Amino acid sequence: MVVELISVGTEILMGNIVNTNAAYLAEQVNSMGLVCYYQTTVGDNEQRLTETVKTAMGRANILILSGGLGPTKDDLTKEVCAKVCGKELVEDKAWRQTIKEYFTKRGLKLTDNNWKQAMVPEGSIVLDNPNGTAPGIIIETEKNTLILLPGPPNELIPMFKASVVPYLQKKQEAIMVSQTVKIVGIGESAAAEMIDDLYEKQSNPTIATYAKVGEVHLRVTAKAEDEKKARKLLKPVIKELKNRFNEHIFTTDPEVTLEQSIVDLLVDNALTVSTVESCSGGLVAGRLINVPGVSEVFKMGHITYSNKAKRKIIGVKRSTLEKYGAVSEQVAAEMAKGGFGLSKADVTVSVTGIAGPDGGSETKPVGLVYIGCCVKGKTTVKEYHFSGNRAKIREATVAAALVLMRECVLEYISEVTFGKKEKR
Amino acid sequence: MVVELISVGTEILMGNIVNTNAAYLAEQVNSMGLVCYYQTTVGDNEQRLTETVKTAMGRANILILSGGLGPTKDDLTKEVCAKVCGKELVEDKAWRQTIKEYFTKRGLKLTDNNWKQAMVPEGSIVLDNPNGTAPGIIIETEKNTLILLPGPPNELIPMFKASVVPYLQKKQEAIMVSQTVKIVGIGESAAAEMIDDLYEKQSNPTIATYAKVGEVHLRVTAKAEDEKKARKLLKPVIKELKNRFNEHIFTTDPEVTLEQSIVDLLVDNALTVSTVESCSGGLVAGRLINVPGVSEVFKMGHITYSNKAKRKIIGVKRSTLEKYGAVSEQVAAEMAKGGFGLSKADVTVSVTGIAGPDGGSETKPVGLVYIGCCVKGKTTVKEYHFSGNRAKIREATVAAALVLMRECVLEYISEVTFGKKEKR
Repeated sequence: MVVELISVGTEILMGNIVNTNAAYLAEQVNSMGLVCYYQTTVGDNEQRLTETVKTAMGRANILILSGGLGPTKDDLTKEVCAKVCGKELVEDKAWRQTIKEYFTKRGLKLTDNNWKQAMVPEGSIVLDNPNGTAPGIIIETEKNTLILLPGPPNELIPMFKASVVPYLQKKQEAIMVSQTVKIVGIGESAAAEMIDDLYEKQSNPTIATYAKVGEVHLRVTAKAEDEKKARKLLKPVIKELKNRFNEHIFTTDPEVTLEQSIVDLLVDNALTVSTVESCSGGLVAGRLINVPGVSEVFKMGHITYSNKAKRKIIGVKRSTLEKYGAVSEQVAAEMAKGGFGLSKADVTVSVTGIAGPDGGSETKPVGLVYIGCCVKGKTTVKEYHFSGNRAKIREATVAAALVLMRECVLEYISEVTFGKKEKR
Repeated sequence: MVVELISVGTEILMGNIVNTNAAYLAEQVNSMGLVCYYQTTVGDNEQRLTETVKTAMGRANILILSGGLGPTKDDLTKEVCAKVCGKELVEDKAWRQTIKEYFTKRGLKLTDNNWKQAMVPEGSIVLDNPNGTAPGIIIETEKNTLILLPGPPNELIPMFKASVVPYLQKKQEAIMVSQTVKIVGIGESAAAEMIDDLYEKQSNPTIATYAKVGEVHLRVTAKAEDEKKARKLLKPVIKELKNRFNEHIFTTDPEVTLEQSIVDLLVDNALTVSTVESCSGGLVAGRLINVPGVSEVFKMGHITYSNKAKRKIIGVKRSTLEKYGAVSEQVAAEMAKGGFGLSKADVTVSVTGIAGPDGGSETKPVGLVYIGCCVKGKTTVKEYHFSGNRAKIREATVAAALVLMRECVLEYISEVTFGKKEKR
């Protein structure tokens, strides 16, 4: 089945906001095995929206429209779609009640135009919206299905997951189930090479690789008549990928981030963490602290951007700074060790580098970064060369710091486990 | 003149990447007074790309296409556009040389398919690309102008600024010049109310407001036959906005960020800075360190997520933590003062709050944040209530910390200046 995405809204058309909904919806429908050939953005204009909907209905089975379901006169998506499909708008009594409760509960004032959101095309399916007053709507015609979703991502995403995914799955003869294997420490081309033979013989399931900053995601998709059968098809491929990439895999859960997997690893092994950052300026700590519940393991962090701070706070030796320079393997090691001593954390990660645009030299160019990690007193330092602008270099640095930290923690855990076994 | 944007690339269509180019280009063309009614995304498919280009040529004067200019067989934008416009592809000798130099300089291996990038539609304008091997191309037909740009934003943006803006300005009878006044400390609706009278009587220049996290941008656009005349029209409006928003304005330069303006303020007044963060977990420091050259003023930062770290590193009193709790005005004040004493910086900003999703209570709900700022020993603390998920709360917190820091520094500067005057 062919899907077409239509984003409605002058804000997107004028470039005031970036269209993240289109990327989200495209990835979702694609992972369900639906094909999407066109995405269109159009403003809140009756004539142009009508034309866009008609064109899309002619070349796709399913239209997913986002935006334009608000209470104001500008919001036209529902009205236009109803008209194109030859449906009247009728009041949905249940949704009128939902709107009333929504406003009462929040102590907000209901204005007349809010009742507009209780009007739906006759015979349409109304989708619940726990995060707003615009219901989602599915209009079915003889040839097409139009799915109308609210524009705000915090309304659209939960509604898509809860109501649209099951609806679309039911429509498909075969269902597609995907599982993502997320890996670190191997580049995209190297990862692709490692599964070249699997690619060649693939038909069902299929494997696709996606490069993210510091990570590679392998998405395996199986097609079958029901979910159970699809999962059965996925199983041997996932197992094979686990065999090939073993410790490089940090999760097979699409919702789990790298920082989440690291925090889980620390929590599970009762290890605490601290950070000492120079060029990354707090962003390594910032990513770890993205994870709810990190307080259980995060002890402290230091941003020692100046040499003086490196000496005074962390105890990096003046002689080391003078002999090797602030961006050096030796300073990264002393930062990790010093932070480890100061914080009494089990794991301390350190970063020193040149993010540019200035500060580079022939021997130490912009993009040179040293990352250190001290686990229970044992310190590892690695050298990296990143390219791009200041933001790109820092983003790559933060990802690399998380990856190194994960490697060192895993090594420590395996040593401890191995040691225990030896003693038996 | 009507512009239409076409994004070419399977990666966008499949949702692997978010289409930031469309937002950038839309904002740019809109600020130049050009109208855009449609944005389309289409994959690397000859037939569908051909149809999309033909449709757009029928309803817009200028087409801006991004992506699909690479060296591989998949990349079809140039070939399709040339064919639709009835042009042959011919080799551009100068660009062939550019490609050769690009590869030689970087020590990269040139493969045969790279020469494809030296082929351009006959009679087209070739746009320089200092960041890649794909030239930009402008094809002019009797009725339309097709502007072909490379997909990577780090190639597209510089090329647009350097080559496309001047080209489009020349094409317009009247030119549009915009200036953005960026303000903090006033919300979007309050700001809009403050210029309600200006809105009402506006025709040329026009004012538009844009809400960003913690900031409001007022874009003033004037239309005139040349840039000088447009700037002359802008001048009194900008002056009026400066009168109304005075110290709330942090810049009138579109390229300057809030953190850049703060670092400039610190550098100009020879003030150094340090940070002590809890729930923001290093992100305030991270934003300041976005600014190249921040090393001149940034002394150190601490992430004291745990109570123990607050006590041990920063010297927050155990009794204060016990009596008022970690998220309190008193602790925020002690964090700022403690960081000030430890770092010997002139300015220390502190943050403590509940980012959620857990950790909230009836008296201290998720979203409650205290931000402190100590300037030369004088400490200010403010209470904030933010809503949204963990990421939203932290983002708003970081912006508020920068805004408070700016306010306190400005107050200090004005006191010093006023004090000096008194002594005369």
